[in-house]
Amino acid sequence: MTELTYPITERSRGRRSHNRVSHAHSAVHEVLDAAPICHVGYVIDGESYVTPTIHWRVGNRVYWHGSAASRFLRKAAGQRVCLTVSLFDGYVMARSAFNHSANYRSAMVFGRATVLENTNDIEAALKAMMDDLFPNRWDSLRPMTAQELKATAVLYLDIEEATAKVRSGPPADHNDASYPVWAGVLPVKTHLGAAETETEHLPLPEELLALQTSGQLR
Amino acid sequence: MTELTYPITERSRGRRSHNRVSHAHSAVHEVLDAAPICHVGYVIDGESYVTPTIHWRVGNRVYWHGSAASRFLRKAAGQRVCLTVSLFDGYVMARSAFNHSANYRSAMVFGRATVLENTNDIEAALKAMMDDLFPNRWDSLRPMTAQELKATAVLYLDIEEATAKVRSGPPADHNDASYPVWAGVLPVKTHLGAAETETEHLPLPEELLALQTSGQLR
Repeated sequence: MTELTYPITERSRGRRSHNRVSHAHSAVHEVLDAAPICHVGYVIDGESYVTPTIHWRVGNRVYWHGSAASRFLRKAAGQRVCLTVSLFDGYVMARSAFNHSANYRSAMVFGRATVLENTNDIEAALKAMMDDLFPNRWDSLRPMTAQELKATAVLYLDIEEATAKVRSGPPADHNDASYPVWAGVLPVKTHLGAAETETEHLPLPEELLALQTSGQLR
Repeated sequence: MTELTYPITERSRGRRSHNRVSHAHSAVHEVLDAAPICHVGYVIDGESYVTPTIHWRVGNRVYWHGSAASRFLRKAAGQRVCLTVSLFDGYVMARSAFNHSANYRSAMVFGRATVLENTNDIEAALKAMMDDLFPNRWDSLRPMTAQELKATAVLYLDIEEATAKVRSGPPADHNDASYPVWAGVLPVKTHLGAAETETEHLPLPEELLALQTSGQLR
């Protein structure tokens, strides 16, 4: 089977040739799905704005959300945006400053921001986010009200161009291997800690216990 | 003493009124200094690009770097950029979907990107970054060559506008307190793991051992 790839344009071309750059759908999706938050870049009145938010993916579509009261999000509607996710995996400590680096996984995706207008669509999208993060939780919650749905803006983009970049492993500075300084990697670990319960009378649901045990954010 | 604040403009105004929004220099600097990486948003040919990179701060100036071969970074020179840092501290699990939230610390700073041209300035800036992250390491490294300095682009901005936002603590949904579903916070923990050594014959330097023991990324 031929692997699907996103178009390779000047914009999405890898700029750090020593790292693993991929335009494969699978590589891009893997990084998107592993990252708990994204940074969305908008151009508003000619200037750049970068805002962090939680995202989720359904096929080739990436969703994020915010407050419907935000004129900001409204201004983003219809415009091409860049949505970037980055997982910082470690400091790469070489024998020279030049070869110091970071281990990371990142994906940069481009597409047109579209705002969901229909409240049924908004509710379905929010349920998909919740189910993605916390299986079975949606159905256990106090249902959303019409007013709450109106107050929630959900946006999405269909990925038009995308690049994934991954750097892993030890420093790449074999020319300096004899230089007498410690070299290696200081790995960065990110995981869920013990749940902080507000409802002492209710046990942590099985799905959240499993999540906490795995430590995985996603 | 009066606390210094960055100007409050429409662009930098907080949009989530239930969170703690600050324009104080101290609040913005604290978040910038705690975050291991930033996301820089550029506008190139009218479109948004968001790239992750390591940043460091000296007073009101924030630096970041990249490859001098990147036409991309060159195009950013002189333009106003948005540099955002985000620390994701936990999932806030309320009794309703609407009140689910995230605990986080973020800072969004705006300023004009300037490229360092003088190799002495580039070297001094890189030394400042290294000293900031890994005290005493710079002097122990194989010195940078003229060619390496030429191949490294260092950019900075002087902060013109900035906002820090912090959300912490349990879900804010007391109206739903009696709804029978588990509520609380799933905290996210990020720390340094055990160093992966490439140089078996050399001990981990004292400063890196201290960093590893603290677990703190910065």
